[in-house]
Formats: sequence, C-alpha cells, structure tokens
Amino acid sequence: MELYNYFRSSASFRVRIALALKGLAYDYRPVHLVRNEQLEGDYATRSSNRLVPLLVEDGQSLSQSLAIIEYLEETHPQPPLLPADSFGRARVRAIAQDIACEIHPLNNLRVLRYLVKELRATEDAKNAWYRHWVETGLEAVERRLLADGQTGLFCHADQPGLADCLLVPQIFNAQRFDCRLDHVPTLMAIFDRCMALPAFQAAQPSACPDAES
Amino acid sequence: MELYNYFRSSASFRVRIALALKGLAYDYRPVHLVRNEQLEGDYATRSSNRLVPLLVEDGQSLSQSLAIIEYLEETHPQPPLLPADSFGRARVRAIAQDIACEIHPLNNLRVLRYLVKELRATEDAKNAWYRHWVETGLEAVERRLLADGQTGLFCHADQPGLADCLLVPQIFNAQRFDCRLDHVPTLMAIFDRCMALPAFQAAQPSACPDAES
Repeated sequence: MELYNYFRSSASFRVRIALALKGLAYDYRPVHLVRNEQLEGDYATRSSNRLVPLLVEDGQSLSQSLAIIEYLEETHPQPPLLPADSFGRARVRAIAQDIACEIHPLNNLRVLRYLVKELRATEDAKNAWYRHWVETGLEAVERRLLADGQTGLFCHADQPGLADCLLVPQIFNAQRFDCRLDHVPTLMAIFDRCMALPAFQAAQPSACPDAES
Repeated sequence: MELYNYFRSSASFRVRIALALKGLAYDYRPVHLVRNEQLEGDYATRSSNRLVPLLVEDGQSLSQSLAIIEYLEETHPQPPLLPADSFGRARVRAIAQDIACEIHPLNNLRVLRYLVKELRATEDAKNAWYRHWVETGLEAVERRLLADGQTGLFCHADQPGLADCLLVPQIFNAQRFDCRLDHVPTLMAIFDRCMALPAFQAAQPSACPDAES
C-alpha cells in the first residue's frame, strides 16, 4: 500500500493510526499541502478531491479518511476498530462524525485561507473561529461520552478504535492552536491513554518522514 | 422508529431518503432549528450534539446521518445502499464524505450565523461563501464520478444508494441558494433520475409534516 500524506494533516493522521493499530505496512508518499502540491501534476489527476490522505492499493485510489478506515476494517478485520454490535458501531461512527463533520471541516487550511483572503478576517478573528468550533465541538463529544455508560478506557469500551483514531488528531490540532481543553477531561484522559500506545506514537506528526518543526 | 427531523435540514433529508428507499416506516418528530428547539429541553438532553437528525429505536438514540444510514444498512440490508465489494463501498463512502465532510459543514445554519454575527459578513459575503464551497465541492464530486467508469444511472452503478442519499439534499441546498450547477452535468442528470423516484419524492422537504413555504 501507498499512503499519500501530509504530516500535519489531521485526516492523514487518522489513517496512519488505523494502519498502525492494524499493524499494516505502507509506503509513505508526502504531499506538501502548504506548498499546494495536492493541486498539481500527477497527484491532482489521481486525487479527484485534491485532498490528502489517499491510499493506493491494487491500483485503486481510495480517499476520504473515514472511507479508507472502513475499507481497512473490512479487508483487515483484526484487531477490530468497530464494535461487533450495530448499536455500538453506530455510536462509534457518530463520535467519529462529530469530529469529522462538525469540527475538522471548519478548520482546515483552505477554510482558514478563505477567512483571511476573502472575508478579511484578522489573525485574532481567525484564531477565535478555530477555537470556537474546536471547543464547542469537543464539548459535544465530551457530553456524548459521559451520557451513555459505554465509554471505557477509550472512546468505546476498553480497546482503541475508530473514534480514537479521530479524537487524537483533533486534540493535537486543538493543542497547536491553544484551544481550551480543561472542559473535556474525559477526552483528555482518553487522549493520554492513546498516546501511551506505540501505534499512536508511531503515527504522530513528529514521527513522519516529512515532519517539520 | 422515531426520527427527529427538520424539513429543511439536509442531514435529516439524507436519512429520510434512506428510510424511504428501504421502505421503513417511522414517526416524524419535528425539531425547529431556526427556533433553536435543538438546544432546549428534552431534545437537548437526548441529543448530545444538539443537531438533527436523531433516530430512536429500541430506546437507543442514534445521531449523525451517515452513522444512522450505516446502521440502517446493517439492520435492514434490503435493498442495499452500499455495493457488495470493498472497493465499491470505499468509493461510495468517499463520495458521501466529499459532501458530508467538505461541503455541508461549511454551510449549515450555525456556521452562517457565526459569519454574520462574529465576522460581520455582509449578506453578499455570506452568500458568496455558501456558493464557493458548494460549487467547488460539487465540482470535486463531478470529477470523481467522471474519473473511474463506475458511475452509472446513479452515483454508483444503476441503483440508488448511499451517495445519492447525500447528493440530492446537497443539490436542493444549492438550488435554494442559487448556486451555479451547469458545471456538474453528471450530478444533475443523477439528481433528475433520483427525483423521478417515489422514495426521493416522499422524502423531500416539501413533503414533510413540518414543511413551510
């Protein structure tokens, strides 16, 4: 497998965690988002949405991080990243989507660029925007995890899974932008437990071949 | 099943289509988003992310439209909304996420409210923002559907499925905000084919009990 990636891309990080949890090897292909490499040349042809990550296997190009992780779950089921029961699977996917559909899309690079360039947002206004969606979005996830008694050592029960693959990169982003995190103690305890595991350590941005300080 | 819903919510509309395609009956529970009913009382307690839709079955509350549709697919597999092969499933999920993660989150009500209230965006600037993400986002979906020879009468092959459940509400939104759509002829042909089907007709906003003109 080849994984087209950017070390700081939160969506890329999700897939790296899933691959690491399943013990799958891959070739890392860097795509530098800040230099707009995703919009150019061979990569733009291969990637219809011109985003990372992109996973290439058997000549097929797969995109969208959640779709890629579901694919890995179907084709390499051990260890499972989704619970066995349908209600549990719905819960884990909903946590993942609380992050992937409600928080992250508002804060990615092209959106921040639009705020500054088209809406003339100041640096302070841009950072306030970022923090607003992260802080309120994570608060909703915290509420969910406290609500139903199914949270364990990780987002769902006691093994890391899909929801944790989404949570950890979002917390990395939150820390990078100095977001408030003291209102989400459950999430932070899970984050710490994840980051104590080799799979999460190996997948983190600073461990990537294209990492920059 | 009970479905908490708002007639104009695009995420609610996706679930209504999936339920209609599978022929599943449900009780419609309106939640008026413009009046902020999702933030209040019993609903706010029940819905951790304070969004619609919410599907209640056997005392369990399920949220996030894609997670709900995956749940319906697992528990009521006929007719299937995902293809049988893993590459096909990854493709359909990626199309769905190109809409659910790249277009829709930027344009929902709370985001538009933030633009106006916090960033002092004018009506014109707000509408330009809306159209920008819809038009560029749909262009990416059009590119994907043209790229790989797997598009048929619908987004994937010749039966309506998950990707079509996402596409149709997004086109409704685009039309409501006068977005340009002449650059996505493949999507529009699929949209027309979907809207000729009773399931899509029955699920559309104007057919909902809480519809307003």
